Amino acid sequence: MPQLILLRHGQSQWNLENRFTGWWDVDVTEKGIEEALAAGQLMKERGIDPDICFTSLQTRAIKTLNLALEEMGRLWLPVEKNYRLNERHYGGLTGLNKQETRDKHGDEQVHIWRRSFDTPPPPMATDSEFQMSNDPRYKGIEVPATESLKDTIVRVLPYWKTRIAPELQNGQTVLISAHGNSLRALVKHLSNIPDDEITGLEIPTGQPIIYELDDDLNEIEHYYLSER
Amino acid sequence: MPQLILLRHGQSQWNLENRFTGWWDVDVTEKGIEEALAAGQLMKERGIDPDICFTSLQTRAIKTLNLALEEMGRLWLPVEKNYRLNERHYGGLTGLNKQETRDKHGDEQVHIWRRSFDTPPPPMATDSEFQMSNDPRYKGIEVPATESLKDTIVRVLPYWKTRIAPELQNGQTVLISAHGNSLRALVKHLSNIPDDEITGLEIPTGQPIIYELDDDLNEIEHYYLSER
Repeated sequence: MPQLILLRHGQSQWNLENRFTGWWDVDVTEKGIEEALAAGQLMKERGIDPDICFTSLQTRAIKTLNLALEEMGRLWLPVEKNYRLNERHYGGLTGLNKQETRDKHGDEQVHIWRRSFDTPPPPMATDSEFQMSNDPRYKGIEVPATESLKDTIVRVLPYWKTRIAPELQNGQTVLISAHGNSLRALVKHLSNIPDDEITGLEIPTGQPIIYELDDDLNEIEHYYLSER
Repeated sequence: MPQLILLRHGQSQWNLENRFTGWWDVDVTEKGIEEALAAGQLMKERGIDPDICFTSLQTRAIKTLNLALEEMGRLWLPVEKNYRLNERHYGGLTGLNKQETRDKHGDEQVHIWRRSFDTPPPPMATDSEFQMSNDPRYKGIEVPATESLKDTIVRVLPYWKTRIAPELQNGQTVLISAHGNSLRALVKHLSNIPDDEITGLEIPTGQPIIYELDDDLNEIEHYYLSER
């Protein structure tokens, strides 16, 4: 039966500083490194044995994957990187402290930006210090100005359908190292979670989530590996 | 003009212990890690900007690449891994200390095994502790019992022709992180080095070698990046 492992990157510097991050390329902290190593160790102990890996173009997800794979003795696995697995783009909120943003715009507005399904934050200013349109990793890709969770899902799912699902259907065990919202997109799709529930689903950092799937890639069950 | 960067992995534990390594998957030492980071720092300082990377299925080359790419802020680059870039398989010599092997078989015999173009060492015993036929990374690949440098070249060149050369001809700058003998195979091909000379060519660890090529991938010049 096809098996899929989802892994959210370990703690990043801006997770720690409570700042909106999105597509900005923040590194993992020492704690994030430890989380990645622990995830790899756990997968190794439990005999999780992926055939192919997917990740985003963001350092925190790639590094989490590399550290976990090294712990598993699996650095040699094929890894495909794609911007479609990137975090949700937080637009004009990128770089802002979450508490300061609440103080400025009010709890309610920030709650809408963070937890609405289809309301994006304000767009990133074209002259923002966090502008990524000229980042060479996004050459040939239209960097969004902002994204709602819905926008993120619309971006993630074509990659799932064209690249990831076929590997699972070929009997490959797949490991995806990605981000809170790109993983929400996958979890919503796999577990048929309604729009108004997915926005509140928290995916913890560094905790491998196992999806056991049937041949049509419908969920049989899912669980945190640490709880089995 | 197409640009190719060759990088031999940083010092491995068995480089340090003076043992024949070949396909055995030995990690890099602390010094090897430092060499990899220094190579990345040097490439970054000199504006070396690869578009795509190739490496072997062996930890020491993959890790050297990952460490260099992280220094360059380029962890997001596509990386393709293939056994055809592996080190030469040292057969029955794998795991042996080079000095002990000389004491046992004589200087002349060891010199032939190490420096002959087409004489392979004795094959690895099927019950050797270093047997890799069941290593999952080589699923679907016939692991050789031993290899001469000529055998290694015969293995490396099809991958060069089908995967690496087309990227260069498409204008991509290519970084290859590999091993003493798989890099000798490429250097022999690129610089038209005769059989009896290539066996004596030493490629230092952790030193990026730049090949500037013409559109037909003939060498215009090559140099160690540290010497420019």
